Amino acid sequence: MVEPANTVGIPVNPTPLLKDELDIVIPTIRNLDFLEMWRPFLQPYHLIIVQDGDPTKKIHVPEGYDYELYNRNDINRILGPKASCISFKDSACRCFGYMVSKKKYIFTIDDDCFVAKDPAGKAVNALEQHIKNLLCPSTPLFFNTLYDPYREGADFVRGYPFSLREGVSTAVSHGLWLNIPDYDAPTQLVKPKERNARYVDAVMTIPKGTLFPMCGMNLAFDRDLIGPAMYFGLMGDGQPIGRYDDMWAGWCIKVICDHLGLGVKTGLPYIYHSKASNPFVNLKKEYKGIFWQEDIIPFFQNVKLSKEATTVQQCYIELSKMVKEKLSSLDPYFDKLADAMVTWIEAWDELNPPAAAAANGKA
Amino acid sequence: MVEPANTVGIPVNPTPLLKDELDIVIPTIRNLDFLEMWRPFLQPYHLIIVQDGDPTKKIHVPEGYDYELYNRNDINRILGPKASCISFKDSACRCFGYMVSKKKYIFTIDDDCFVAKDPAGKAVNALEQHIKNLLCPSTPLFFNTLYDPYREGADFVRGYPFSLREGVSTAVSHGLWLNIPDYDAPTQLVKPKERNARYVDAVMTIPKGTLFPMCGMNLAFDRDLIGPAMYFGLMGDGQPIGRYDDMWAGWCIKVICDHLGLGVKTGLPYIYHSKASNPFVNLKKEYKGIFWQEDIIPFFQNVKLSKEATTVQQCYIELSKMVKEKLSSLDPYFDKLADAMVTWIEAWDELNPPAAAAANGKA
Repeated sequence: MVEPANTVGIPVNPTPLLKDELDIVIPTIRNLDFLEMWRPFLQPYHLIIVQDGDPTKKIHVPEGYDYELYNRNDINRILGPKASCISFKDSACRCFGYMVSKKKYIFTIDDDCFVAKDPAGKAVNALEQHIKNLLCPSTPLFFNTLYDPYREGADFVRGYPFSLREGVSTAVSHGLWLNIPDYDAPTQLVKPKERNARYVDAVMTIPKGTLFPMCGMNLAFDRDLIGPAMYFGLMGDGQPIGRYDDMWAGWCIKVICDHLGLGVKTGLPYIYHSKASNPFVNLKKEYKGIFWQEDIIPFFQNVKLSKEATTVQQCYIELSKMVKEKLSSLDPYFDKLADAMVTWIEAWDELNPPAAAAANGKA
Repeated sequence: MVEPANTVGIPVNPTPLLKDELDIVIPTIRNLDFLEMWRPFLQPYHLIIVQDGDPTKKIHVPEGYDYELYNRNDINRILGPKASCISFKDSACRCFGYMVSKKKYIFTIDDDCFVAKDPAGKAVNALEQHIKNLLCPSTPLFFNTLYDPYREGADFVRGYPFSLREGVSTAVSHGLWLNIPDYDAPTQLVKPKERNARYVDAVMTIPKGTLFPMCGMNLAFDRDLIGPAMYFGLMGDGQPIGRYDDMWAGWCIKVICDHLGLGVKTGLPYIYHSKASNPFVNLKKEYKGIFWQEDIIPFFQNVKLSKEATTVQQCYIELSKMVKEKLSSLDPYFDKLADAMVTWIEAWDELNPPAAAAANGKA
């Protein structure tokens, strides 16, 4: 039986890593009491809270946390007509937080995620592990059988080309979940009691050319390297689909990272996911996605971006055109989504003008 | 500090898996006392021992094991002029054992590999785990973030296409090593004291299109599915290179598995690797490979086999032609190797005539 860790008595980290270079983005419709447990690890950082649903509802944030909070009225005010690209009544709204941040790194976490324990019973500082993952290179061009070669006690194994041992910059760190695994509705329905109790002590690079299902529950990324592609799409209110926001972003960022020579890691850190969402509600949100992904994934597997696309924005605009051309026949929704992808980039560039981005180290 | 497991007192498995369908291939130049420790797990199986070096030397096999032994004189007698494709004074000679076996599965292990302990202190039955890996499907077409989806307590995560959940047949199971990691000579020289103490409790499929460094120390495969591609090349006596036998086989089998829609897994099981080989001797054997692999790996990354190549033999012959055409400019050695690849297939087909192979379930 896995249980969350007890973090009472763990002192707040005196010298937190990247304190002034990282924002924590949390989408929520409820009180953020889960932050109490995260205090030793997250309190030193700035939070960007994206309030979903009714804007008149008051969100309680535990004392001592430094934060800014945006509700739907704020999003509409800041983005004007471009606010149409930000989902409502769906945790996809979190990507607004990526856009308003001015920091180099983002960590995003769901409000039902608690601190996990490693096999020795120690509370896992998830953010610290994400930062380690982001600050050390990825190895997408050749597989290392002993997992992360940069980790203490590990290295590249015999037969790993020396020319590839410098690796590439890491853009994304995808963390995992103990207790409630991230299953789709059909799997939830079939295995209602399954819990993930296996702690796999590894971080690995997802190879170039390979897609993966990116979950937004426990995710960190380098905003400068990949931010403009971290769009969580149109989900929830008024849309025919939900629960594919992070998947959409995952497919997009992976093909763009592959094109730009950036790395995506998965594995550690684990969080403790406390509560399974309702599988019946999930099925309703997901069922179109379950059909559509059978066409969407081959589409992404065959995406070839042009040599001219050298920035994330250029890649993303190219991708939006391909989505319009190749996926609109699947459903008119993809036509709308392709337009929203363009709006998202326009809004991103408006809030992050190139000069400011350059000053922020983007060159 | 990692230590090998103590297997005294563990009863020999009363109902070993695939007892009549699996051969254990061991290349050796010394006594096989290491088999004492493996007795509870390996004694029920048939061994094929390939004696390297001086054929007049007597190899001692612990009592109770059922085995056949081949020395260089036997190889020369059985293969005649085609024996030239089997390496001498190098553990690459083990592939002769793959050829003379008549079983569906092969497990090959080095004679300095002992039984590892899992984190709970239990002796790891490596062969049992390899068999599990081979008997359950692989998932090379899309990455599953919770690792092997077929394992108890795991499944495919949200966003994994349902059409891909049947997976594909597994052809190869690549196991890992605790204690002495499989490092090249430069890494051994730089990190003489590094030991692998991290037990990563995972099995994963190496994605389609991704190459990996395959180590022959702890390896199992389905002979019917991939056997004719498991050629360990020309190494050792009279050759300009050593310690690339398993790497060569790994590159070849991976591109052929990708082409034929077969899976390759890596991860569990671990063995305990007892003794680091001499890094100075290794450097001498390896140094040409260290240069050459910088060209060989891009070559394999770009191999495209034709639609007409539908059997392993056809794929391998096509590959041999590409090696001759594309790698001979690197060194005349590759011309010789390409010829040896053809000889190997001829010898394989001679010892495994198509009719017999068909009767053996090969269709």
